[in-house]
Amino acid sequence: MEPDSTLTPHRNTRPKIALTVGDPAGIGPELVQALLADDALARDVQLVVVGPEDLKPEGVGSWQGAAAPDSATHLWCVTPGTGRVTMGHAQADCGRTALAALRRGADMAQAGEVAALVTAPVCKEALHLAGEEVEGQTELLGRWAGAKQCEMVAIAGNLRVMLLSRHLPLAAALKEVCRATIVERLRLFDATLRAEGIPAPRLAVAGLNPHAGESGLFGSEEIDEIAPAVAEACALGLSVQGPISADRVFLEGSRGHLDGVLALYHDQGFIPLKLLSQESGVTLLAGLPYRRLSPVHGTAFDIAGEGRADPTNLRVAVQMAAWGGLGLRPSQEEGPSGAQEGVDCESLPST
Amino acid sequence: MEPDSTLTPHRNTRPKIALTVGDPAGIGPELVQALLADDALARDVQLVVVGPEDLKPEGVGSWQGAAAPDSATHLWCVTPGTGRVTMGHAQADCGRTALAALRRGADMAQAGEVAALVTAPVCKEALHLAGEEVEGQTELLGRWAGAKQCEMVAIAGNLRVMLLSRHLPLAAALKEVCRATIVERLRLFDATLRAEGIPAPRLAVAGLNPHAGESGLFGSEEIDEIAPAVAEACALGLSVQGPISADRVFLEGSRGHLDGVLALYHDQGFIPLKLLSQESGVTLLAGLPYRRLSPVHGTAFDIAGEGRADPTNLRVAVQMAAWGGLGLRPSQEEGPSGAQEGVDCESLPST
Repeated sequence: MEPDSTLTPHRNTRPKIALTVGDPAGIGPELVQALLADDALARDVQLVVVGPEDLKPEGVGSWQGAAAPDSATHLWCVTPGTGRVTMGHAQADCGRTALAALRRGADMAQAGEVAALVTAPVCKEALHLAGEEVEGQTELLGRWAGAKQCEMVAIAGNLRVMLLSRHLPLAAALKEVCRATIVERLRLFDATLRAEGIPAPRLAVAGLNPHAGESGLFGSEEIDEIAPAVAEACALGLSVQGPISADRVFLEGSRGHLDGVLALYHDQGFIPLKLLSQESGVTLLAGLPYRRLSPVHGTAFDIAGEGRADPTNLRVAVQMAAWGGLGLRPSQEEGPSGAQEGVDCESLPST
Repeated sequence: MEPDSTLTPHRNTRPKIALTVGDPAGIGPELVQALLADDALARDVQLVVVGPEDLKPEGVGSWQGAAAPDSATHLWCVTPGTGRVTMGHAQADCGRTALAALRRGADMAQAGEVAALVTAPVCKEALHLAGEEVEGQTELLGRWAGAKQCEMVAIAGNLRVMLLSRHLPLAAALKEVCRATIVERLRLFDATLRAEGIPAPRLAVAGLNPHAGESGLFGSEEIDEIAPAVAEACALGLSVQGPISADRVFLEGSRGHLDGVLALYHDQGFIPLKLLSQESGVTLLAGLPYRRLSPVHGTAFDIAGEGRADPTNLRVAVQMAAWGGLGLRPSQEEGPSGAQEGVDCESLPST
């Protein structure tokens, strides 16, 4: 007699992914419920949801440390707080609940009890009300892990972008465009992509000015800072091209001709990312001792609790966490994808 | 007996479109030849190619002024110069040939002898060698027409973008972000879209800083210059939204929720345009007394004369010139397309 497959539906080799519920007043809890009910996802991933007990659906087993049974479809790790809140508003209680789940998820990932951490969105204002005056989860995870440098790699299809600066006025961001910072960021980008399974990452740096400065006609940062940084990175053994015109380099990345693009300011990276991902996409946090992914969307307070939130992004983040942080497809793992069309280290515009 | 349709293949109502050959050392001439041989195009458009005699294919009729027969498939208006040149290099002779064709095409359009002007690419360096120290064709056409203000509207699908500044270092472009210039540009944008058949254009202005400044947290230009400009434009009767985050406004435009987006600097507009058009796209010149379109690509000296150049972009420019400068599809002409999802004048972040 054949074994009843419904009794042993899950391979014991499924990676465990810690998934925090995020701010309980936002769309996090309903997205998590959607993933728990996703049979296709359960074939590949064992979720360890981290959040308050009153959000746990009946029938989901309780997390009892790394020795938890692999055969349970998914597990729930109970953390302090409650999910019974006023939806759609920043509240101190919600901030505390989100913080408790995040801290526990980070600890589990750091201890290696799970393969990776995926975080549903939190509300910055609620974190502040709860006493944590931080920019967001990234800053907390970096601090807790004692990371020297923590930067986001935002991903949309083939395009992977790291930012040189993030939430700065554009005028201030221009002042951050300096050789030392670019080299430091390229080294982190390279190391992150290598750790995620790309043996020799092909990186590029975007230009800052129109046409990457057109040999100095439209600005000098390419000549003074960016090209020397690229040359220095190449001398260190990295494969880096650029500066390449910003209106071309993200297109090259989206076509798979580059493994990563360093953008020089927030919108330079996020304009192409949000266009390509249709405002969704996921981010991988570089610089942590473990793998952490998150969807780029926020708490969506305007629709929270209505059951209208789309779980696609969070599912993609979970899948990438399970497959490897970059979600590489087999064809990409086999070797370079597509022709190298960008300029190389030997054809820097300023040399 | 049925009339032989091959003898009267073309409706007399086909619009005449003047098409300059551009720099003869570039890909312009071969693209023009491809369009002359395009039977589908000939059903809708009568080309009046403007260029040197030795590029004219046999069998194409000669232009004899506006009284030229509509029944000829296409026509050729001979201008001084030669197409027998060294391909792929900037040459004074080529600059002179391109200038002669451009001037004649502009005159024909200004006199109303053709419905619109479409220009194949020229080489800036060749124009300089020929004694015209200009940025490009845009500047010449504006000067010859005595236009007060001439700006490009770049088009990729539903997305139409006008730039506040163009070939400036980014640091200098930031200084151009001022209320008066934004209002002036919005008025030109509005008038251009109305002239091209959009009765009440829905415009938006992109933010300059991350998250459009996030209420002043990440920069003050939104509060000090952009929002007041939007309010002033609304008071003048225009429909303008913004500032909207740059990583969202072009997505809204590409979805057809906006008729035009004002970008505040070169790359802010061209990153999304080239991504959406896959590095092609066309531009409409705003501020001229006639309709002029051009492909965004250049002379492509690296492949000129090899017969590998893709005429798609030039064909799209010709079709848009014939249909109306925006190439509006019937569904768009019938009314607003899609829901208005952006913020409106009443919800400016700074008010």
